[in-house]
Amino acid sequence: MGLNFNQERIMKKTSARHDREFLQKCIDHAVASVAGEGGPFAAMIVRNGEVLGKAGNCVTLDNDPTAHAEVVAIRQAAAHIGDPHLLDCVLYSSCEPCPMCLAASLWAHVPRIVYAASHTEAVRAGFDDTAFALLLFGQVMPVALPAGHLQQIAMPQARAPFDAWLAKADRQQY
Amino acid sequence: MGLNFNQERIMKKTSARHDREFLQKCIDHAVASVAGEGGPFAAMIVRNGEVLGKAGNCVTLDNDPTAHAEVVAIRQAAAHIGDPHLLDCVLYSSCEPCPMCLAASLWAHVPRIVYAASHTEAVRAGFDDTAFALLLFGQVMPVALPAGHLQQIAMPQARAPFDAWLAKADRQQY
Repeated sequence: MGLNFNQERIMKKTSARHDREFLQKCIDHAVASVAGEGGPFAAMIVRNGEVLGKAGNCVTLDNDPTAHAEVVAIRQAAAHIGDPHLLDCVLYSSCEPCPMCLAASLWAHVPRIVYAASHTEAVRAGFDDTAFALLLFGQVMPVALPAGHLQQIAMPQARAPFDAWLAKADRQQY
Repeated sequence: MGLNFNQERIMKKTSARHDREFLQKCIDHAVASVAGEGGPFAAMIVRNGEVLGKAGNCVTLDNDPTAHAEVVAIRQAAAHIGDPHLLDCVLYSSCEPCPMCLAASLWAHVPRIVYAASHTEAVRAGFDDTAFALLLFGQVMPVALPAGHLQQIAMPQARAPFDAWLAKADRQQY
């Protein structure tokens, strides 16, 4: 098995303050994404403080059902470094990653994921994240991810992208 | 929930003979993919007999950990029809889709998936499909997909792409 999660190494290089700064950037980007006709999500791939990928959700903008913010940020980062494996990277996301994004992060060997809003926010905004988790996992959360792989940090503005989405009369639900 | 699986409609439009023809094309494409320095997988999106997307695995070719054959075929098809939802389509794959590809097919609202080789073939060739399924699903198979959503059809040459991969001395494992 090709996994190399490097969690101890990655934890030494990040701090709670940095985590919150990057999450806030994701939240701001997700709000901007809604204003720009994208979905209410954004994500970043960060290595040693350097942003290697940063994206909003482009599903309807690009007619690409796989263009979740996390997937697009992973694709950007891997193209940028010229390697499909994002060792020593952290995936920050404005919202709890869906099953596709979790699996994509495993294939990318991302050792740590930090997110702000819970999947219940995505559901409040009309998305199928929880429904698909139940079909695949048989429960809301992935069953056996390594401890510390997936971490939620409460952010005061975590709901803002979804509030913006729900306030948008012409939003294109998908 | 935005799902519209349309399974009855899709089943009326396909036949076992067509299924086997498209699977054989996927297997041939997967063998060719290995010869072209891609991974040993290929997939197609087909609607009413028309191929809307067709791809081999491009993870190492494109430095894109999400470039599994199924994901690339889904992206091609959605771009082609200008809609992120692939209603009335069948996803054919040379091998059982991994968790990322299954979740991608749910987001794409693909109502039916047909594959040739079992995940055990991917594992034999050194891939982490089963390991990731265990981390996410807690078991090898997705827990609660609708009946008929995912169908394996035994094909005599299903192992050929993996045999070609394992015979390739300079293969780039990922």
